[in-house]
This record gives sequence, structure tokens and C-alpha cells, in this order.
Amino acid sequence: MRYAEPINNLIKAISRLPGIGEKTATRLALFILNSKSEYVEELTNCLKAVKEKVTLCSECVTFSDIDPCGVCSDTGRDASLVCVVSDYRDMMALEGMGGYKGRYHILHGSLAPLKGIGPDELRIEELIKRIEAGSIKEVILATGFDSEGEATSAYLARLLKPYNLKLTRIASGIPVGSFIEYMDGATLGRAMEGRKEVS
Amino acid sequence: MRYAEPINNLIKAISRLPGIGEKTATRLALFILNSKSEYVEELTNCLKAVKEKVTLCSECVTFSDIDPCGVCSDTGRDASLVCVVSDYRDMMALEGMGGYKGRYHILHGSLAPLKGIGPDELRIEELIKRIEAGSIKEVILATGFDSEGEATSAYLARLLKPYNLKLTRIASGIPVGSFIEYMDGATLGRAMEGRKEVS
Repeated sequence: MRYAEPINNLIKAISRLPGIGEKTATRLALFILNSKSEYVEELTNCLKAVKEKVTLCSECVTFSDIDPCGVCSDTGRDASLVCVVSDYRDMMALEGMGGYKGRYHILHGSLAPLKGIGPDELRIEELIKRIEAGSIKEVILATGFDSEGEATSAYLARLLKPYNLKLTRIASGIPVGSFIEYMDGATLGRAMEGRKEVS
Repeated sequence: MRYAEPINNLIKAISRLPGIGEKTATRLALFILNSKSEYVEELTNCLKAVKEKVTLCSECVTFSDIDPCGVCSDTGRDASLVCVVSDYRDMMALEGMGGYKGRYHILHGSLAPLKGIGPDELRIEELIKRIEAGSIKEVILATGFDSEGEATSAYLARLLKPYNLKLTRIASGIPVGSFIEYMDGATLGRAMEGRKEVS
């Protein structure tokens, strides 16, 4: 005897979520089984809504329930400045910082040949189209500083070189609040390389 | 700017699951956003099915999609032997062990006065009714050995004393595969108390 069929199916479906093993999936499935019908209804409605209402912005290809998205439709922002990020969460982190008044472009991934993710899997074509439309003056490469993010940045730098625009990469160095002694050699090297004259 | 409304709603709904904080909920919501519609459909169908098809067995009050459940309807099992457990997962763990041929009774919780869970919140009335029906000869108390499980067991032992039946508690002691040196004093004490003569 195993869990009743519908419970088993739910456990299987939940355990396909990232970072959720069978034990956690079982715990969640039994919590759901024990919870009120209203909660389950809310959860299923939210799941449906997210797939039905959220689409990609036709401009920056970010996830949005309006098109163009809030950023692209904001006339107070600088349309000539585009920050390229790997995914939606990166865009949200940068928005959370506040102060950035340009636009974004979401690649929806990073180059990872070993995982079968090449340039065609990323939203690069859309970026090229935006650049060819002519109003973009600066592209900020804000992919991560892990190997995939670095590879993506290097690839884009080469790809975008022929276009007549300012191409920048966000700075690598020691995070605010960190101690020098705990930093790894690679980060320290980057920080040294990127040193600036103090006035 | 924050996440689009439907995404935010999904994050909120997911973060109400036990052990899932806002960061994990965000990760899961964005995974769902990125996943195929078929997966989301499967997930919502499983969620609905678990609430619609799974009910409580009218005999042992376990979760089941048939009534009576697989255990209670199995004529090869001993209906005079009932193992009382706190929840469905405990029953599943005992079934997983194999070899137990009696039935179960699921309390759906443990006594926890500080959390507002008293005897009325547990499925004790149903247990009494089964006992009063007359065919039960032995009740095995198999609630946990944490304080709530112990309290529940002690409460049931007192409550069931007037009924003319064999009342047993599963053994407490050193788990199979464990080293004596790593055991806590309470467990060692229990193991000493419960010692048996070797033949």
C-alpha cells in the first residue's frame, strides 16, 4: 500500500518543482490535503492566472501583465539606455536598487553549452532588432559574474561591437559591507583591475 | 515597481505553504511562469483532485480515495488490533515497514494545548465509537516520543483504561544502526528501562 492515487499524483507533480525533493513534496501535499478548500482554490486560481495573464513585453521581453510593460511604457525613463540581464529576477533586483532610469532587455537565460543553451535559446534576436531600430545609445551588460554570465556577456560584447553604440559592463569587485580578508583571489584581482583614482 | 500582480499573488499563495519562505516562493513562482502550460495544468488538476477525490475512511478516518480504505477493507487483516497514530504519514511509515497486519486509527494531530489543540480537535470520538462497537481487543499507542506525542499517548491511556482491552505503547529505545555513545541521556534511560532478558 502506498499513498492514495490522487495524493501520489500531487506529490509527483510537486516534486518536479526545483529544489523540492520527494520528502518535501509529500509534506506539502499533505499540508494541502489538510488545508481548507478556499486555499486550494486560491492556489489553483493563482497558478492559472499567472499563465493566462502574464505574457512577454513586446519591447524588452520581460514578464508582464500589460504590454508594453511598466518600465517600457514609462515615458520618464531613458529609452536610449538598455540594461541587458539574464532573467526577470535580475531585472527586479536592479529595480529594487532604485535610481536606474533606463530600460531593460531580458535574455531569459545565460549561455550554457553543456546544458544545450546556445545563443538561439536566448532572446538575442529581439535585442538586435531593438538596436537596429536605432534609438538605443548605450547597452549595459548586466549578466552575472559566474562563468555562464561572463560567457554571455563576452558573446554579446563581440556580437554588438559592429553597432555604433556605447557598450558597458557593470563593475566587478568587492561587495559593499565585505571584508578584504574574506574575499577570494579572483574577486580581489577584479577589484584591483577596476581600481579608480580617488579625487 | 514590483513583480506583476498575478506573479505577486502566486508568490503570496505559495509562501503560505509550510517551510516555504518568500525567496523560495519567488523561485517556484518564476519556475512555474517559465514552465510549459501542460505542467501547470497537471499541477492544478492534481490539486483539485486531491481535494475532490480524497476523503476520510469512515472506519479509521485515514485519507483515502475509497471508503472504507484499503486497509479497513482488507479481510486478511486483523480487525481486533488497532494501531493509533497521529497522522497519515505515520500510518504510511508503519505500512512501509511491512509485517503489521492489524488496522489503524488516525488522530489527525497530537495534543498541543499551547497551539490550542485539545482532545476535541483530535479524532478521539471516532476511536471510542470503534472500541464501543466491541470487536477491538488491542489498541497500540503509536504516537511519537516527542512531548506532544507522549502527552497524547498518556491521555489516551487514561481515557481507554475503563474499556476492557489490551493497551500497549510501541517501544522507545535506541534506533537500529545507532551507536550508544551518540545517544542522548533520555533515550539511553528509556532503553535501560525497557531492557529485556536475553534467552
